[in-house]
Amino acid sequence: MPFSPLIALITDFGENDPFVGIMKGVISKISPGLELIDITHNIPPGDIQRAAIMLWQSKPYFPPGSIFLTVVDPGVGTSRRGLIAFSDDHIYVGPDNGLFTFVLDTSSEQWELENREYQLPHPGTTFHGRDIFAPAAAYTAKGIFGSEFGPVITDILRLPKPHFRLSPHQIQGEILYKDRFGNLLTSLGKFTSLDQMTFEIEPWFDVEPKLSGKIRISRAQASILLADGRILSWVDTFADLQDDECGILLGSSGLLEISANQNSAADLLSLSSGEHITLKF
Amino acid sequence: MPFSPLIALITDFGENDPFVGIMKGVISKISPGLELIDITHNIPPGDIQRAAIMLWQSKPYFPPGSIFLTVVDPGVGTSRRGLIAFSDDHIYVGPDNGLFTFVLDTSSEQWELENREYQLPHPGTTFHGRDIFAPAAAYTAKGIFGSEFGPVITDILRLPKPHFRLSPHQIQGEILYKDRFGNLLTSLGKFTSLDQMTFEIEPWFDVEPKLSGKIRISRAQASILLADGRILSWVDTFADLQDDECGILLGSSGLLEISANQNSAADLLSLSSGEHITLKF
Amino acid sequence: MPFSPLIALITDFGENDPFVGIMKGVISKISPGLELIDITHNIPPGDIQRAAIMLWQSKPYFPPGSIFLTVVDPGVGTSRRGLIAFSDDHIYVGPDNGLFTFVLDTSSEQWELENREYQLPHPGTTFHGRDIFAPAAAYTAKGIFGSEFGPVITDILRLPKPHFRLSPHQIQGEILYKDRFGNLLTSLGKFTSLDQMTFEIEPWFDVEPKLSGKIRISRAQASILLADGRILSWVDTFADLQDDECGILLGSSGLLEISANQNSAADLLSLSSGEHITLKF
Repeated sequence: MPFSPLIALITDFGENDPFVGIMKGVISKISPGLELIDITHNIPPGDIQRAAIMLWQSKPYFPPGSIFLTVVDPGVGTSRRGLIAFSDDHIYVGPDNGLFTFVLDTSSEQWELENREYQLPHPGTTFHGRDIFAPAAAYTAKGIFGSEFGPVITDILRLPKPHFRLSPHQIQGEILYKDRFGNLLTSLGKFTSLDQMTFEIEPWFDVEPKLSGKIRISRAQASILLADGRILSWVDTFADLQDDECGILLGSSGLLEISANQNSAADLLSLSSGEHITLKF
Repeated sequence: MPFSPLIALITDFGENDPFVGIMKGVISKISPGLELIDITHNIPPGDIQRAAIMLWQSKPYFPPGSIFLTVVDPGVGTSRRGLIAFSDDHIYVGPDNGLFTFVLDTSSEQWELENREYQLPHPGTTFHGRDIFAPAAAYTAKGIFGSEFGPVITDILRLPKPHFRLSPHQIQGEILYKDRFGNLLTSLGKFTSLDQMTFEIEPWFDVEPKLSGKIRISRAQASILLADGRILSWVDTFADLQDDECGILLGSSGLLEISANQNSAADLLSLSSGEHITLKF
Repeated sequence: MPFSPLIALITDFGENDPFVGIMKGVISKISPGLELIDITHNIPPGDIQRAAIMLWQSKPYFPPGSIFLTVVDPGVGTSRRGLIAFSDDHIYVGPDNGLFTFVLDTSSEQWELENREYQLPHPGTTFHGRDIFAPAAAYTAKGIFGSEFGPVITDILRLPKPHFRLSPHQIQGEILYKDRFGNLLTSLGKFTSLDQMTFEIEPWFDVEPKLSGKIRISRAQASILLADGRILSWVDTFADLQDDECGILLGSSGLLEISANQNSAADLLSLSSGEHITLKF
């Protein structure tokens, strides 16, 4: 694996307290001068699924060797394990609570963060981001290999899968969350576009029943059905929508999104996380 | 132009979603180890003018060679162009939608971001910050020159000018926006102070009618008239104001600001963006 | 002192305005390529005590040679002094208004920031973070020593001490503030744990009457008494608390905190800063 001394951070620590700065101080003390990139620190407190999805969205755009330090850790101080994982080109560090559901697969290797030599002295019970995870990321950046941290883990904890059910000519999914602009990300993906009107879908997590190959969908014949019967059509970009009109478009992560034009689709439609939606095609 | 490998970022992407982190990942993949400085990511969604003013406020304080990656892009996916501009000591990258109104002049050079070689493969229709602008900034930092990105642009889009009307012994302007502390920035500037009581004004954008030279103004004889008839006097610093008193002072960008002492002038006066104000002198 | 080119920033400038980005531009112009770590910029406007405590919480985790650029400066433009201080392994830069109360002691050395050579030309009256403090931090990182900035200061301004009163078998303290998760930090500390049930306290600031040596406290016999008579018991970590139950635990800074399990203790108890609490042991 080519090496790039970069640590990318995702936490629910917010930006008002010194938690993130302290983690960076710890990193800099162990491994000075690394490139540190904040993905976000505003994961809603304890929202492991949100962080897990964000990690999946972010990782393809980071250089090989990037270390993702991910700390959303409501179980801190309990017996939940800390882990370091190597998968494809990237390294992941954080609590074993489902955060890595969408980025680790059967080809990944994971180890428990057990070796006290690579932790701060006397770790407390409330801030493993500082005492265990930041040091692990910093030592990894210095070249410490996974197996030096502790024993292999083969049974990492995985989150329940988002809703995704394929039937003839339709896929049912769910709304995951809204972004800053009020776009509603859905579980329907991952789509790639073959041309402006034709798309292929390959699920971004293991689904049951398995799809036999990719499914090809023509935008012209596709629409989204909301749970209350409303129908949205699939457009190319925001500007194709009239004022206060909502539509679906292929979001930047390859997931279908419900969007409006310079307006919040979440507000216009009063939809929220978990509601079912159906793609007809 | 001396070269400094620094990219400064201004966006309306907020800090809750992975957008900014992903842009930085893209930059680091192309051009690792650059200094990345966040100016802000909390531009109100789609507020091009706010970002344009902030860029003007920030640029004098950045080293020669700094690249300003500015993405407030409500027209993403439409035919609006992407551009890279070289002006004085700085480089600007972003959509051609008025963002660069206050930093580019007739001596600047601009090129359209057209060359697919310096974009991510298969750019989408919703996130050119990731697919086009971040790569352009990163390749520029590696030494790719403006003309390699695409054809010259001579007709960049410019925003309407803020209100600024000179009459004998008065200038009428407008309130631009409030900052975190509740100070109200106005279009009246750019002032420099000759001494504690004497100031010169030279407009910070092209105004009609043109001023013939700089205008000298004595603080002792100057006051601000609000639209409803209230009058504010010009003070030296915040501490010169009594509790709940508002006054005008020379803000850090050379614009007159309406301020209070450890209080929000915006709240005390109930003023908001666009309202007219008159400097009498 | 070993040298590490790192500047850590604490301000009340928020994240919506260009203030912090401009300070970093100034730093980069003087001293390019430094590692810059944001601790927070969301100190409530003018809340010097909050910043002073955060500085105390953060500093042990930063490498020797770190420069803390701390700007919460409601008195900007008045005669309050700017200072640079060297203490133990760290350097502090900011206004002399109490910010450094908890990190400087009689062994520290301080100098006034007076030398115009290490400031921006023509400092204004409203943004010394940009004109004076950021340059001082950047020049220090280049090796300029404290005494080159100006005369020695021996009488730095100190904040009033938080409440802390020892009586037989109890210590009375106060609530300092709540963090993002709704944990309420108290002035009761600094505790270190000898084992899971036994703790020692050594005050983190000068208290009257002085403690004669450290006090040893057994968790099993300790409880917190709120001003209204409610009693909280001391637990090991968040997960030991039932739904909606609040307890005390040893926070990550060594201060006792009032916490809940995946819930906000501040909301559950309706307590706020300044309220007294008593540790019985």
